[in-house]
Amino acid sequence: MSDAASILEDLVTANRILANEKVLDSFGHVSVRHPQAPDRFLLSRARAPDMIQVDDIMEFTLDGASVGREPGKPYAERFIHAALYAARPDVKSVVHNHSPSVIPFSVTNRKMRPIMHMCAPIGNDIPNWDIRDKFGDNTNLLVTDLEMGRDFAQCLGHRTVALMRGHGSTVVGRGLREAVFTSIYMEINAGLLIQSLSLGDVVYLSDGEIETISKGRAGFTIERGWENWCNRAKRPYVAGEWTTGKGFSRSDG
Amino acid sequence: MSDAASILEDLVTANRILANEKVLDSFGHVSVRHPQAPDRFLLSRARAPDMIQVDDIMEFTLDGASVGREPGKPYAERFIHAALYAARPDVKSVVHNHSPSVIPFSVTNRKMRPIMHMCAPIGNDIPNWDIRDKFGDNTNLLVTDLEMGRDFAQCLGHRTVALMRGHGSTVVGRGLREAVFTSIYMEINAGLLIQSLSLGDVVYLSDGEIETISKGRAGFTIERGWENWCNRAKRPYVAGEWTTGKGFSRSDG
Amino acid sequence: MSDAASILEDLVTANRILANEKVLDSFGHVSVRHPQAPDRFLLSRARAPDMIQVDDIMEFTLDGASVGREPGKPYAERFIHAALYAARPDVKSVVHNHSPSVIPFSVTNRKMRPIMHMCAPIGNDIPNWDIRDKFGDNTNLLVTDLEMGRDFAQCLGHRTVALMRGHGSTVVGRGLREAVFTSIYMEINAGLLIQSLSLGDVVYLSDGEIETISKGRAGFTIERGWENWCNRAKRPYVAGEWTTGKGFSRSDG
Amino acid sequence: MSDAASILEDLVTANRILANEKVLDSFGHVSVRHPQAPDRFLLSRARAPDMIQVDDIMEFTLDGASVGREPGKPYAERFIHAALYAARPDVKSVVHNHSPSVIPFSVTNRKMRPIMHMCAPIGNDIPNWDIRDKFGDNTNLLVTDLEMGRDFAQCLGHRTVALMRGHGSTVVGRGLREAVFTSIYMEINAGLLIQSLSLGDVVYLSDGEIETISKGRAGFTIERGWENWCNRAKRPYVAGEWTTGKGFSRSDG
Repeated sequence: MSDAASILEDLVTANRILANEKVLDSFGHVSVRHPQAPDRFLLSRARAPDMIQVDDIMEFTLDGASVGREPGKPYAERFIHAALYAARPDVKSVVHNHSPSVIPFSVTNRKMRPIMHMCAPIGNDIPNWDIRDKFGDNTNLLVTDLEMGRDFAQCLGHRTVALMRGHGSTVVGRGLREAVFTSIYMEINAGLLIQSLSLGDVVYLSDGEIETISKGRAGFTIERGWENWCNRAKRPYVAGEWTTGKGFSRSDG
Repeated sequence: MSDAASILEDLVTANRILANEKVLDSFGHVSVRHPQAPDRFLLSRARAPDMIQVDDIMEFTLDGASVGREPGKPYAERFIHAALYAARPDVKSVVHNHSPSVIPFSVTNRKMRPIMHMCAPIGNDIPNWDIRDKFGDNTNLLVTDLEMGRDFAQCLGHRTVALMRGHGSTVVGRGLREAVFTSIYMEINAGLLIQSLSLGDVVYLSDGEIETISKGRAGFTIERGWENWCNRAKRPYVAGEWTTGKGFSRSDG
Repeated sequence: MSDAASILEDLVTANRILANEKVLDSFGHVSVRHPQAPDRFLLSRARAPDMIQVDDIMEFTLDGASVGREPGKPYAERFIHAALYAARPDVKSVVHNHSPSVIPFSVTNRKMRPIMHMCAPIGNDIPNWDIRDKFGDNTNLLVTDLEMGRDFAQCLGHRTVALMRGHGSTVVGRGLREAVFTSIYMEINAGLLIQSLSLGDVVYLSDGEIETISKGRAGFTIERGWENWCNRAKRPYVAGEWTTGKGFSRSDG
Repeated sequence: MSDAASILEDLVTANRILANEKVLDSFGHVSVRHPQAPDRFLLSRARAPDMIQVDDIMEFTLDGASVGREPGKPYAERFIHAALYAARPDVKSVVHNHSPSVIPFSVTNRKMRPIMHMCAPIGNDIPNWDIRDKFGDNTNLLVTDLEMGRDFAQCLGHRTVALMRGHGSTVVGRGLREAVFTSIYMEINAGLLIQSLSLGDVVYLSDGEIETISKGRAGFTIERGWENWCNRAKRPYVAGEWTTGKGFSRSDG
């Protein structure tokens, strides 16, 4: 399979995994920066993530304009992706979700912070973007143009996750599989945190722990999840690079 | 497929979707106003929603009397539907449910209000009908005659949703797919709200946001959910009108 | 199928349904009074409910002694069933369960009471039997002899449900399908009540409502659930008596 | 099937069961002491539990060094297993998990204690190991060398379960099926306890009850769960020793 074909298959798989793991329902979307053209990104036409096929995937500029094939109507919120790829050259993948356990943190003052090692990469400082602050009280809460996308990107800054009040959140990653991994464990962390808070004061991961885990998260950790999620979503597993590269060693964890 | 056949298939699909998405269990029912005879509505014989076949569907007058084929016993609560179609010419579909996350709001003073954009159309003012108020303390809580149905319709008024104390709720829509969509996201909203309230004070959607979203909810949004829910419920997806009409445009969200 | 064969098939189905609806897990058991010999009851050998076959079913006296075929070891807690059939001639079926949402009410002072019409038959006065009270602090909490069974039966009295502290609960019915129905809706009620209590003061069903619903619960209501649960548990549905008897009428709800 | 083959099949089954029952997700691992060589233990290569095949299983010394076949990279945390088998000759199996309902107890001061008879063997005194206490603030929370493993083993002491702050917990057993059983009911107990605590003060199992249950837990109880979980996980059920040995008797519970 060519690289181009393989990235499309991976993007379909990411959609199916996120639907199957309940991070996305009929809505939400995941994109990947074009591997050959960094000023482009790949994103499905507007369709429920669990329905997406390779043929649904479209190519967009960093202004959110579609180029090439148009199999259907694009997502109204493609501007989230466009603005983030423009603002953050390090970002290779974006997941916009309505992750259910995360939403309560977007409508209360309670901060979402990581309490479990798997979830550390969401970071210790997660902003909550409120569309009302700049765009007023009569929006449909969706990020439907570049100005809104850029405002959100500014709020996200250098971070990995930002909440969106009354709406959901957006996660970025240095790769598609990493963004999926972070999204799944963010949902898990949020659910665990809601339960923990019902028991009393919570010990969060420390800044040192978060930094150590985030820097050290290795490809094989992400692969372990990806293989399992592929199987659960009934998608073929295609091994990522680490397993064939020199990352393999008995001593590296 | 003729229009008449297609509405029956859609009604079966609506039942299966609502059962599969856990809005209905063995009880609850969904109806649609007869597309050719606005003083009639279509509703299954009394059967669990997930079991319903085309042959189970009966036709009723706005008094709740069955006309035509009688494949079996009708639902005792067909009067909810009859009274709502009589009172509300704009209503084309009715879902009566025991949606599990909604019931807690029917037995406490805590108001159910939308906190997430997808759920906005349930509105900011959801009444809670208590059958005891007019019909006393010895009912089985069911709406088993027209007088009760009319009392409930009066409580619902111009709204989209009314709770029923110790029982469930009823949702109306301008179309079958819209009523299903609203029902599914009402359940989601209720579950999110219960969790949010455990975290502290909640920021609800504003009146402006609710109005903007409710007015702007487009057919393609509903279709995106419907296609996905058909797939999950293992029912064929038949595209709704928007996809073939002029609603399709790259600029409309 | 003979009556004798049909009751065995129904008992297998009841086990599978209760496992599939999460009222039973690997433990718990359901029995039925022998239709021809009221001083006997039918209960599987000790096996997980979802695994039970017709050949696993044994016959017991009201002392808990097995008679006839012995396909395997009996449940240690058959004395719950024995004592209840002895004490309550009206009881035709017994479900002993570890119904998960019910257990919290057995270990706290919070009373489980019905808040939703479907659940009314559990009644307004549900005792909580604590094996410690009579049998001290060194039991394994199981009802492993007739004396314990009789003590529990005395606690249950004329009621439909009694909790068992740190253990589960036991439900009785005038028929197998009724006991299954009550058990499933008891679990649902308990889950709804836990959520409702997190929202504030709860309006319970009134005594009048509970009495009206409990007296009026008709066979066709139970059948509607049974057909659906058979389908979900992948068991054939055999219609109960009401559908062929004179219970069918357009006016009876 | 030889004993050696059968222990490998059982270990695969244990992995699949724990994944299917949601005690493990893509991470966590279960091992068994080598039946012929007590200074060795068997553990899969680093792979998601639901993906594991017989060919993935490796053999390790009590220092955590692999011996023999190396089908892939080992788990970084094999030192949990190594240290526990070294410290506790009575231990024949170890389950390290991120059991979701247990984690909240690892990040709050609320003690996890058994409230239900099935869960008694977790014991009344469950320590919470915090890697920070000895290894500081810059770990990734994983037990990645023998020194950490030994520190954890010291914390566990003679007990059956110890929590690991912000990480999960580890369960030991006198056999593989027992460790699986304890793990599943620990997760259930934790979920029930979180709900119970929301209702008010909780009555825990007494020390006498815990001791009676823990000492009396018989092989056939564990088998009843194992058979059911095999079926749910679509794995063949191979009967354990009790069913063919003299443990079978009508009087032993």
